[in-house]
Amino acid sequence: MNIPSSLVPATGRLGVLMPGLGAVATTFVAGVLAARKGLAYPAGSLTQAAHIQTGKGATERSSLIRDFVPLTKLDDLVFGGWDIYPDNLYEAARQANVLERPLLDQLQEELAAIRPMKAVFDRHYVRNLSGEWVKETTNKWEQVQDLMADIEQFSLINHCQRLVMVWCASTERYHEPGPVHMSLAAFEKGLHENDPAIAPSMLYAYAALKMRVPFAMGAPNLCVDIPALEELARLTNTPIGGKDFKTGQTLMKTIIAPGLRARALGVNGWFSTNILGNRDGLVLDAPENFQTKEVSKGRVLEGILDGELSPELWGDIHHKVRIEYYPPHGDNKEGWDNIDIFGWLGYKMQIKVNFLCRDSILAAPVVLDLALFLDLAQRAGMSGIQEWLGFYWKSPQTEPGASPVHDLFQQLNKLENMLRYLMGEERMTTFGLDQYEEETAEVESETHS
Amino acid sequence: MNIPSSLVPATGRLGVLMPGLGAVATTFVAGVLAARKGLAYPAGSLTQAAHIQTGKGATERSSLIRDFVPLTKLDDLVFGGWDIYPDNLYEAARQANVLERPLLDQLQEELAAIRPMKAVFDRHYVRNLSGEWVKETTNKWEQVQDLMADIEQFSLINHCQRLVMVWCASTERYHEPGPVHMSLAAFEKGLHENDPAIAPSMLYAYAALKMRVPFAMGAPNLCVDIPALEELARLTNTPIGGKDFKTGQTLMKTIIAPGLRARALGVNGWFSTNILGNRDGLVLDAPENFQTKEVSKGRVLEGILDGELSPELWGDIHHKVRIEYYPPHGDNKEGWDNIDIFGWLGYKMQIKVNFLCRDSILAAPVVLDLALFLDLAQRAGMSGIQEWLGFYWKSPQTEPGASPVHDLFQQLNKLENMLRYLMGEERMTTFGLDQYEEETAEVESETHS
Amino acid sequence: MNIPSSLVPATGRLGVLMPGLGAVATTFVAGVLAARKGLAYPAGSLTQAAHIQTGKGATERSSLIRDFVPLTKLDDLVFGGWDIYPDNLYEAARQANVLERPLLDQLQEELAAIRPMKAVFDRHYVRNLSGEWVKETTNKWEQVQDLMADIEQFSLINHCQRLVMVWCASTERYHEPGPVHMSLAAFEKGLHENDPAIAPSMLYAYAALKMRVPFAMGAPNLCVDIPALEELARLTNTPIGGKDFKTGQTLMKTIIAPGLRARALGVNGWFSTNILGNRDGLVLDAPENFQTKEVSKGRVLEGILDGELSPELWGDIHHKVRIEYYPPHGDNKEGWDNIDIFGWLGYKMQIKVNFLCRDSILAAPVVLDLALFLDLAQRAGMSGIQEWLGFYWKSPQTEPGASPVHDLFQQLNKLENMLRYLMGEERMTTFGLDQYEEETAEVESETHS
Amino acid sequence: MNIPSSLVPATGRLGVLMPGLGAVATTFVAGVLAARKGLAYPAGSLTQAAHIQTGKGATERSSLIRDFVPLTKLDDLVFGGWDIYPDNLYEAARQANVLERPLLDQLQEELAAIRPMKAVFDRHYVRNLSGEWVKETTNKWEQVQDLMADIEQFSLINHCQRLVMVWCASTERYHEPGPVHMSLAAFEKGLHENDPAIAPSMLYAYAALKMRVPFAMGAPNLCVDIPALEELARLTNTPIGGKDFKTGQTLMKTIIAPGLRARALGVNGWFSTNILGNRDGLVLDAPENFQTKEVSKGRVLEGILDGELSPELWGDIHHKVRIEYYPPHGDNKEGWDNIDIFGWLGYKMQIKVNFLCRDSILAAPVVLDLALFLDLAQRAGMSGIQEWLGFYWKSPQTEPGASPVHDLFQQLNKLENMLRYLMGEERMTTFGLDQYEEETAEVESETHS
Repeated sequence: MNIPSSLVPATGRLGVLMPGLGAVATTFVAGVLAARKGLAYPAGSLTQAAHIQTGKGATERSSLIRDFVPLTKLDDLVFGGWDIYPDNLYEAARQANVLERPLLDQLQEELAAIRPMKAVFDRHYVRNLSGEWVKETTNKWEQVQDLMADIEQFSLINHCQRLVMVWCASTERYHEPGPVHMSLAAFEKGLHENDPAIAPSMLYAYAALKMRVPFAMGAPNLCVDIPALEELARLTNTPIGGKDFKTGQTLMKTIIAPGLRARALGVNGWFSTNILGNRDGLVLDAPENFQTKEVSKGRVLEGILDGELSPELWGDIHHKVRIEYYPPHGDNKEGWDNIDIFGWLGYKMQIKVNFLCRDSILAAPVVLDLALFLDLAQRAGMSGIQEWLGFYWKSPQTEPGASPVHDLFQQLNKLENMLRYLMGEERMTTFGLDQYEEETAEVESETHS
Repeated sequence: MNIPSSLVPATGRLGVLMPGLGAVATTFVAGVLAARKGLAYPAGSLTQAAHIQTGKGATERSSLIRDFVPLTKLDDLVFGGWDIYPDNLYEAARQANVLERPLLDQLQEELAAIRPMKAVFDRHYVRNLSGEWVKETTNKWEQVQDLMADIEQFSLINHCQRLVMVWCASTERYHEPGPVHMSLAAFEKGLHENDPAIAPSMLYAYAALKMRVPFAMGAPNLCVDIPALEELARLTNTPIGGKDFKTGQTLMKTIIAPGLRARALGVNGWFSTNILGNRDGLVLDAPENFQTKEVSKGRVLEGILDGELSPELWGDIHHKVRIEYYPPHGDNKEGWDNIDIFGWLGYKMQIKVNFLCRDSILAAPVVLDLALFLDLAQRAGMSGIQEWLGFYWKSPQTEPGASPVHDLFQQLNKLENMLRYLMGEERMTTFGLDQYEEETAEVESETHS
Repeated sequence: MNIPSSLVPATGRLGVLMPGLGAVATTFVAGVLAARKGLAYPAGSLTQAAHIQTGKGATERSSLIRDFVPLTKLDDLVFGGWDIYPDNLYEAARQANVLERPLLDQLQEELAAIRPMKAVFDRHYVRNLSGEWVKETTNKWEQVQDLMADIEQFSLINHCQRLVMVWCASTERYHEPGPVHMSLAAFEKGLHENDPAIAPSMLYAYAALKMRVPFAMGAPNLCVDIPALEELARLTNTPIGGKDFKTGQTLMKTIIAPGLRARALGVNGWFSTNILGNRDGLVLDAPENFQTKEVSKGRVLEGILDGELSPELWGDIHHKVRIEYYPPHGDNKEGWDNIDIFGWLGYKMQIKVNFLCRDSILAAPVVLDLALFLDLAQRAGMSGIQEWLGFYWKSPQTEPGASPVHDLFQQLNKLENMLRYLMGEERMTTFGLDQYEEETAEVESETHS
Repeated sequence: MNIPSSLVPATGRLGVLMPGLGAVATTFVAGVLAARKGLAYPAGSLTQAAHIQTGKGATERSSLIRDFVPLTKLDDLVFGGWDIYPDNLYEAARQANVLERPLLDQLQEELAAIRPMKAVFDRHYVRNLSGEWVKETTNKWEQVQDLMADIEQFSLINHCQRLVMVWCASTERYHEPGPVHMSLAAFEKGLHENDPAIAPSMLYAYAALKMRVPFAMGAPNLCVDIPALEELARLTNTPIGGKDFKTGQTLMKTIIAPGLRARALGVNGWFSTNILGNRDGLVLDAPENFQTKEVSKGRVLEGILDGELSPELWGDIHHKVRIEYYPPHGDNKEGWDNIDIFGWLGYKMQIKVNFLCRDSILAAPVVLDLALFLDLAQRAGMSGIQEWLGFYWKSPQTEPGASPVHDLFQQLNKLENMLRYLMGEERMTTFGLDQYEEETAEVESETHS
C-alpha cells in the first residue's frame, strides 16, 4: 500500500467514544465485535464492504476501500461512552432489542465489560426521557472539565493512540443559533455563566475538540455547526462533521430524487411519513424535538430538484415529512412515501415507496465509517468541516455560504475522489473509466482534424 | 452557439418515421404538436426540459440542453409511419385513450392529416394482434423495396432534409440470432429467399439503413443488434441504437439499485410485477413475446450489482420479472417491486415500490430525444452503435464484447459528456464542479510538498 | 308493493337542504341529475343500486331496495342549501374539481340555477376558512329565525311536500358538551344570550327540528348528539342521525377489523394516515378541528375488537390516526394503513392497505341514502335517533348508554332488517336463507328425538 | 356444560393423522405442544381463542367456544402422519424454518419422538418434489391396505379413542373428474387396476373413510369431492370436508369483497399476486400444479359479487391470480392485491393490499380447528359433507348442486349457528342480540296496530 508521506500511519488503538450508548451504539459495537470474530458480515459499511475503482485502461482495477486507504483495523478499535442509564452494553443491547439474543450471547463478555460513564443531561433539551446516571456537576464549564477528564482517563486505561467521538444520543429540542454560539470567546463565557442556550451536545463537542478528538454529530442537533465550535475545530486542527445520520427514508429520497431529475420528470408533491417505536421515536414525539428533525429532513429535496433552475418541473413541490411514535414497531422503522410526479404534457403519475427498514442496522455502519474516516482525515492533516463525508448526513455541514450536496451519487463521487486524491490516484467520475473514451478519441481524430 | 466545424447545421425539416402508430407514437406526435403550440410542457424530455452544467469556477453555468447543442427545432419536425390499422393519428390517439379528449380535439386537424402507410406484418412474430392494413407483397426482398419507396415518397412529399426512424410497434416473439443474421451477405440472401428468421422489424431497419436513415429500436426485438445490420450501419455511416425504451419499472430499478450499491447494502431478491392493459400488454400476454421482454428486463441488475466483485452482498440475487395483461388499467401501467435487502450483520429489510405510471407518457419523450439525438449524431459524423444513448434503453446495445452500463446516473454522465465533447467543452462528472477542488488544492500544496 | 298502512306514501317533492354546498354537496346533486338523465350510474348508493334478500325457501327472492321499500323517486328531489361563498352549484362544482367538465357541462343549466342562501358562519369554529356570503344577523336566536324563514321560503318556492336536511359543511373545532347543551330550555336560553358554546351547526339543526325536518350530521361536529337537540327531536317527532359520513379509511377499517375478529387474529397496532388536499383537508389542518375528527375516527376499533373480552388478542392495540393536508391530491384522498397483527403462537404479520379513494365520490351516495331513508323514517312515524342508519356513520349516534355498532356487516344487517320489518317481512341474517336449515332439520329429528 | 344426549362425550385420546409432515403440520403440532405447556397463545384458532355469543336480553352472554361445546382438550391430542422424507418432526420443523429455534428447542424431545410413516407418492402428481421415504408397494389397492394398517397400528400404539385425518401435503397436478371417480364401485375397481387417474391423496382419503376416520383436504386437490368418496363417506357415516385451507390472500379477499358489496361499490378488476419461497411455492412452480390452485382461488369472487344480479356493478370483473415461487421469502408469504373499484357515477378508485403474512402460521390453527370440529361432528352423528365448516376453505365443498358461500362473515354465521344448534341454543345472526329489537317492538305496537 502506497501511503503518502504526509499520512500518519494507523498504528495503535483507536478509541471510539460515543455520547449515547443505546440502540445505535450497541448495534455498532456488537457488530464490530461480531465482524472481527467472523460471526457476521459488516454489510452497509463502505470502509469494510465497498470497492473503489481506480486507474484507466490497462491499470484499471477495483479494490476494497479498506485495502486502498490505510484505515484503522477493526481489531484496533476500543469503545466507550456516556449514557443516562447505567446499563452495560450487553444489558443496553438486550434492552434495545435490535440484535437477536443468540448473537448477543456470543458477545456477552466483551459487551458487558463496557460500562457507560455518567452523562451530562438536561431535561430541557429532551423532555421525553429521564435518566439518573448523570454527572453531579451542574455548571457547564465544570461539566466540560469532567468530560475532558473522562476522555483522558478512557484513553489511558485503554492505551489509545488516537480517539474519535461520534454522537449516538437523542435529538435535542429545536433552537436557533444565538449570540453565545457566534464565537469561541462568547461560547466559553457562556460555559462559565451556565448559559441555557448551550445544549448538552455542545459540551461534548467542545470537550472533544479541545482535546483534538474529531467529532461527528449523528443527530440533527445544533452543535458543531455553530461558529464557536467551527472556530475551535480550526484552532485545534481537528476534523468535524455533521449532521444527522442519513439512514432510512431520507436515504431513499436522495436516491430517487436524482433519478427523477435525471429523467427531467416534474414533481408536485412528496409526502413522507415514518412510524417507529424505539427511544428515538419517543424523543421525537415531543414537538420541540421533532422540529429539529423536521428541519433537517426538509431541506433535502430543494438541493436536488432545483426549482429556480427549472420552475416548470420543480417550482412548486409540496414536501411534507412526518415522524410518528408507534410502539408496535420497535426499532423496525417503516417509511412510507407518496411522490406525485408528472411527465410528458404534465400527465400525473405516482410513486409509492414503503421501506421496512431497521433504524440501528442502517445507522451502525455509518458510525463505523465516520469513526474510521474522521481518524483518516486527522492523520492526513485535514481539519475543520469534512465536506467529502456529506454522503453520511441528512444535513451535510458545509463551509459558510456553500450549499450542501444532497444527491447520494454526487456525495459518493466526492468521497471516492477524496480517497483517490489522498492516495495519489487520478480523480474520476463515480463511473469508472469512460468506456467511450477510446472510441470518441477516434471520432475526435476524424471530426476535429 | 459555438458549433464545431464538423457538425452539419440542423437546417430544414427532419422527418420522424415510426413503424407502429399506436399509443406511444400518437402520444409523442400529439405532444410535440401541443408543445409547439404552447398548450403543454414537454416534461420528461432531456432535449426540451433538462439543463446541462459546463465550465468550472468563474465560467460555470447551467444551460438548457437545447440551447447548448444545435438540435432540430420542434417546429421543423414532420411525422409519418406505418401501421396494421388504417386509422389516422387522431383516430388512433382516441383509440389509445392516453391523452384526454379536450387536448386531442385542439390538435385534431393536424393529427387527422397523418395517415399510416401499409405495414409489413407477420402474425408469426405477434400472435395476439391481427390487422389488415398490410402490404400486398409477401416476399421479404420486395417488402424492403416497398418500404424504401415509402421512405422516399414521404421525404419528397414532406420536403424533408433529413430522416430518422424510431420503432414504436410491438414486441416480436423471442428468437435467437441464427446464421442468416450473421453477415450482410447472408441477410440479403435471406431476404430474397424469404427466410422466416428475418423478422418484420429487421425489414424496416434494413430499409432505413440502406437509405442512411438512423434507426432506433424501441421494443426488445432482435433487430439492429445483429451483425448483419451492424455491418450495414457501418457501411452506410448511419447511427443506430437500441433496444427497448427504458420507462417504468426498469427505470426505477436502475435508479434504486445504484443507491443500494452506493451504500454497500446486500440484496437477496428483487421481485417485479407489472400490470397493464394496453395493446403492449396484450401482445406480451403471448409467452413467446413475453420471453423477449423478460430477457431484456432481466439483465439489468447484474450490471449494477456485481456479484462477482462482491459475492457477500450480491452473489445470490433472486431476480424475477413478470408482466401481466390486465385490461382495467389500460395504458396506466402499474409496477410493483419487492426488494429484499440486508444490512449490518445480514439483518433483513424490505423495500416496496408501487409505481402508478403511464406507459406512453414515459415513452413519448424518449422517442423525441432519440429522434433528435440520432439526427445530431448523424450530423456530427458519428455512425454505428451510439453507446452514449444507453440512458434510454433497457438493453443498451454495445460494441461486441463490451458490457452495457445500466446505472442511470452513469448513463446520464456518458450522455452529457458526449454533448460537452461535441461542443468542445471539458468533460466532467455529472456533479458539476468539485466543490472541494480548491480546498483540497490547498491541502495538496501542504501535504504533497 | 305492499305498503304498511302506517307508512305515509312518498308522493310529491322532497326538498334536500344542505348546509355547505361544496365538493360533497355538488357531487351529490350533479350525480342525482346525471342519474335521472341516464348519464351515469349511481353506484355506491344502497337506495339506488343494492339488492335486499327476503323470504325463505320457495319465497326467497332478491329485490332492488328501491323496489322493495317506497322511497322518494330521484325525479322528485329538489335541492338547496347555504354556503359562505355565493357561487352557484355549477361554479362550485367546477371549483371543487371532483367531476369532469364534460359531465358538468351537460348539467350546467340545472346546476347554475341553484344558488346558496347566505350562511351562518363563525370563524371561531372553522379557523382556516373565511367567506363573505354570510347572514347579517349576529345574535344566534335571530340567526335561527333567519334559517327557519329560509327553509319556509325554499319549501314554498319549490313546492315541497317534505324536507330533509343533511350537513355537508366543514368540521367544526373540538368542544365538549357543556351546560348549555344539556336541555332544550338551557339551549334556547343560550340562543337568546348568544352563548359561544352553541356552534353554527347546532343552529341549523335546531331550525330543522323545530320545523320537523329530519336532520343528518355529515361531519364529526358536536351537534344533534347533545341532549338539548335530542329532546327537541323527540318533542317534534323528527328523525335525526349522525355523525361523520363513513367514507374512505374508516370504511375500510370497519370491513377489515371484523375479518380479523372472525379469524381470532390478534392486533398490536393500527396506524392510519390520510393525505388529502381539498377544503376539508384545509379545515382539518387546524389542530382544534382535527381533534374533532380524531375523536370520531379513533373509537372505531374498540367497538369491533373487544379488548376486555379477549385481552390476549386485543388488549393492547396502539391505534393512531393522522390526517394531513396535502394540496397535490385535491379531492383524491389517499389512505395508508399499517396493521400489525399476530397469529398462532404470537407470530407477527403485517397488512398494509393503500386506498386511493375520492372523498366526495364516496360521500355523495351517502347523502342521497340518508336523505331518502330519513324521509322514509319520518313517513313511517319513527322519530329521534335512527340507530338502524349507523351503517353510514363513523360515530353512530345511539340512545344514551348504548354502545355503537361499528362492524359494517352488523350495521348492514340492522339496516336491512329494519327495511324488512317495515315491509312486514321476516327479519333474517344478512346471509339469506340458512342453507343447512333443512339438512340440520333432518339431523335434528334424528338427534333430538 | 349441557351436552345433548346424542353427543358422544369427548373422552380419551384423539389421534390427528396428517399426510405431509412439513411446514404446516410441524407448526401445528409444535404449537399445540407449546400451548399446552403455556409457552405460547394459540391465536388464530376459533376453538381455542374465539368467543361465541348466545342468548338474548337477560340471558345474553359470550363464552369461549371451547367452553361452550364439548371439544377434545389439547392435552388429549396425539399426532402422527406420513411424509416422503424420513425426518422426525423436530428435524422437519427446523428445516421448515417457520418457528424460531428457542421455542423448538423447548419442544425438542416431544417433536423428535414423532417420526413419519412411509408415504404413498407419485411423481406424476407432484413433479417438483422427490422423496425416498415411500412405500414399497406400487399397486394402489395394496397401498390402501398399507395405509389402513398404518392407521390401525398408530391407533393401537397411541391408545386412541378416535382419529381424524387432515391433509397437510402438497398440491397435486390439476385433473378433472373422470369415470373412475364417479362411483365407489368404479373407484375400487380402479384401485385394483392401478388407474393413473386415482391420485395419492385419494388413497389416503379412501383409507380414512373406510375406517370411519373423518377426512379434511387442506390442499386444492381433487379428492373427497368426487362422487366415489362422497358415497363412501355416506356409507360409513363419516364427516368429510374440503378443500384448500383459506389462509392469506384469499382470506383477505373474502373479507374485503363483502365490504365492497355491502356498500354497493362496483368492481372492474382484482389482480392478486403472491410471492412465497417454501416447499408449497416450489410445488406450485409447476404449471400443472398451479392450475389446481388457480382454479380453487379463482371462483371466490363470483360467489360474493354476483354479476348476474348486479351487472352494472359486478358484471365485468377481471380477476387474475398469480403465485410466484420466490425463495428469499421462505415461508413468509407476501400477497399483493390491486383492486379497481368504482363508485358514484362510475368514478374509479383503487385499493392496494399488501399482506406480509406467514403461510404456516395462518394454516396451523385451521388444522387444529378442523381436527376438533370434525371430531365433534362425528360425535354428533353428522356425516358426509360438513358445509358449516366452509369458513376454513378456499373452495368449500357443498352438496351437489348447491353453491358455496365464500363471504367470510356468512361462513362464520353458519359455523356459529351450527354450534348453537348442537347445544340447543337459539340460532341468531353473527351480530348478537338485535339492539333495536325492543325499540322496534314499541314502534311495531304503534304502527301495526
